[in-house]
Amino acid sequence: MARGNHWCAVIHLKEDNARFLLLILFLLIYMLLGAIMFSRIEFEKEQEERDEYNTTYYGFLKKHGDNINITELDELLKAHALASSKGLLVSKRPRWDFTGAFYFVGTVVSTIGFGMTSPSTILGKAMLIVYGLPGCSACILFFNIFLERLITFLALIMKKFHERKLRRQRDQNGLKLPNNGRRPSEQSDDDLENWKPSVYWVLLYLTIGAVTIASCASAVYSTVEGWNFYDSFYFCFVAFSTIGFGDLVPSQMSDYDTQFLYRLGNFCFLTAGVCCIYSFYNVISIVIKQFLNWCLRKLDCKCCHRRKPRPRRNAITPGHLQRQLHSSQEEKRTENGTTAPKTNAVEVTEFDSETDGAGRRMSGEMISMKDFLQSNKVSLAVMQKQLYETRRNHGGGAVPSPLGQGVGSLAMLNNKLQETEGRE
Amino acid sequence: MARGNHWCAVIHLKEDNARFLLLILFLLIYMLLGAIMFSRIEFEKEQEERDEYNTTYYGFLKKHGDNINITELDELLKAHALASSKGLLVSKRPRWDFTGAFYFVGTVVSTIGFGMTSPSTILGKAMLIVYGLPGCSACILFFNIFLERLITFLALIMKKFHERKLRRQRDQNGLKLPNNGRRPSEQSDDDLENWKPSVYWVLLYLTIGAVTIASCASAVYSTVEGWNFYDSFYFCFVAFSTIGFGDLVPSQMSDYDTQFLYRLGNFCFLTAGVCCIYSFYNVISIVIKQFLNWCLRKLDCKCCHRRKPRPRRNAITPGHLQRQLHSSQEEKRTENGTTAPKTNAVEVTEFDSETDGAGRRMSGEMISMKDFLQSNKVSLAVMQKQLYETRRNHGGGAVPSPLGQGVGSLAMLNNKLQETEGRE
Repeated sequence: MARGNHWCAVIHLKEDNARFLLLILFLLIYMLLGAIMFSRIEFEKEQEERDEYNTTYYGFLKKHGDNINITELDELLKAHALASSKGLLVSKRPRWDFTGAFYFVGTVVSTIGFGMTSPSTILGKAMLIVYGLPGCSACILFFNIFLERLITFLALIMKKFHERKLRRQRDQNGLKLPNNGRRPSEQSDDDLENWKPSVYWVLLYLTIGAVTIASCASAVYSTVEGWNFYDSFYFCFVAFSTIGFGDLVPSQMSDYDTQFLYRLGNFCFLTAGVCCIYSFYNVISIVIKQFLNWCLRKLDCKCCHRRKPRPRRNAITPGHLQRQLHSSQEEKRTENGTTAPKTNAVEVTEFDSETDGAGRRMSGEMISMKDFLQSNKVSLAVMQKQLYETRRNHGGGAVPSPLGQGVGSLAMLNNKLQETEGRE
Repeated sequence: MARGNHWCAVIHLKEDNARFLLLILFLLIYMLLGAIMFSRIEFEKEQEERDEYNTTYYGFLKKHGDNINITELDELLKAHALASSKGLLVSKRPRWDFTGAFYFVGTVVSTIGFGMTSPSTILGKAMLIVYGLPGCSACILFFNIFLERLITFLALIMKKFHERKLRRQRDQNGLKLPNNGRRPSEQSDDDLENWKPSVYWVLLYLTIGAVTIASCASAVYSTVEGWNFYDSFYFCFVAFSTIGFGDLVPSQMSDYDTQFLYRLGNFCFLTAGVCCIYSFYNVISIVIKQFLNWCLRKLDCKCCHRRKPRPRRNAITPGHLQRQLHSSQEEKRTENGTTAPKTNAVEVTEFDSETDGAGRRMSGEMISMKDFLQSNKVSLAVMQKQLYETRRNHGGGAVPSPLGQGVGSLAMLNNKLQETEGRE
């Protein structure tokens, strides 16, 4: 019981804080596991490479050690390593001509930061800070607006397909009246108005997009740079995620066959790739957030059913709300003339009955992944409906700018991606 | 006139697209200017460093060239540069022991990617892609939730101070009735309820926070790593922005005095810094977005007053809306019993009169930066009010989770940072 109470205390933190702590916990565990995994994978190779280098170095010394000054050799080696890391060798392109500097600036504002070029003067370093602050901010805004435009575009296309599907269904049904007694055309118009694309479909399309861009880019890089396709693909992931290790950097040799075209292509690939992966990450992070909510609900279930069968409080339907809604639903229907609150009340109740209204889930049994996915959809639906009704309620009126509708990565997606209960 | 028409065509794209294009244009110009600037600053230094290295190299050859095989020397140099870039030299810490791998994993999920360590096996590269996708997404979510928590916390503190200020004002005013005839206590309660912190104050606090963290971190790095303070500060900017060039990377030597403590401190500094700068960038990007809106309005002004004095369409009050609001404001007041639409209508009208309702601005005269800042505040206020009223309108009821209130970087900030018209 003591353990159960402990859990309760943790969960009954303010919901937001609990979710934040849970995420930190998961992230730390994920990083620890990752560290163990990569350590196992790479440890041996590191030893091999170190041995290899030592063999080369001591072999050289053994052969020529008597003739040369070892201190001077070490100095040369050091100078060479520095020059190599700064790309000063003759085979490399100039760092700070205009195109080189443009490439550098691009890696700064996008926060890729390959590091194949970095400022070495004091003024350069100071200017980087001054220049980077607005640059990176503008670029974050660019990614966010791109994300918003992309999702809008995807939603438009998917809606068109959905429309066609509905029309085909209507044609097949002919003049048969459906269960609810409404005419098919009315029903499908209603469906269409409320329809929003699913987050999972958008995820699929983004995956296809990202893989396509990465494949095309890899094909180009492996041809022009002479990397193997596999390395090129790895590079694409590292660059598009804005990690930018800098172990592989394209467009660094001093001469290419079609120099201008290749540099332009490189710029386009990087821009498209970063935008696409940024959108991809933001969509995944919605799913992760829903997973966290699901975990919180589950933890809540586990500890609370032992105490008393009270209405469950969770991220999607806080307790005080649930009680209020159950008792005042009919009341609201009559007292409020507008459609919005009524619809919301019905929705939330529907959702309740889906996850815990039946009372069985509260007894602590396992909630399946299917339920999670289902509740994910429905909780998104509740939010969407609310946002949607808001806009309609105010007569489409005082929505001041698209900023208010949520351009920011997550919230914008919430606005755009949810399916309403109209489809159920 | 042809030029004017051209501008109009550009601006009367869908508002969102116009803003996106404008941002791309600005970003390209900014990058071009940056490229020119950095090229000028760094070009000479590059030549110097190249010459310096060549002097060292050819000096060594001149002295020892007769005794050694130059091909073998070049191979050694190459091997050394590679080993140095991979950190395989004896003076460096092991790459892939557990702590090294943990450091590596941290630079992956945060997308800093210094590149002091990167996988070299095929399996390692493949696993990086598999591991990085959920890791980076979770980290983006972490940053977003941190941002939301931080702003909530700042808002709470600032509200407390505002409350104290109001109370002091009330005490000073004594029993005097203010202009609008309401009692002071009523008025200040109202003010307090509607009060939200200004985006500029939050920006100030974030700046202070970021500079403090960077200064503390720089002090530690310059002591332990032996970098000068200036370089340490530059490193902090590069790391906290997740650019991560990798020209300076802390905690790379094989031995430190207080190793565990330093590594822990390094981890904490990087986490706090990245979170803080991420929040900082997102707040700046709101201001940039408002600047873009202001530019669009201004372009709109310039081309449209030549044609006919029609109500201006802009990001904050689209034309169709404006007309509708002006004509139906009184109507709304009576037909709709709830407070929300009424308040919104009043607000938008207020805002209109501030920027173009008076008709003077439409004649194309310059809008000053002060006006921009002012309108920035007010437009945020309009949005905030709307979001706020939404929540109240639905009885605090169907808000399903904080996700719906906008966790995503920008939208969340819109929700939290706006000042309402109550303060004017």
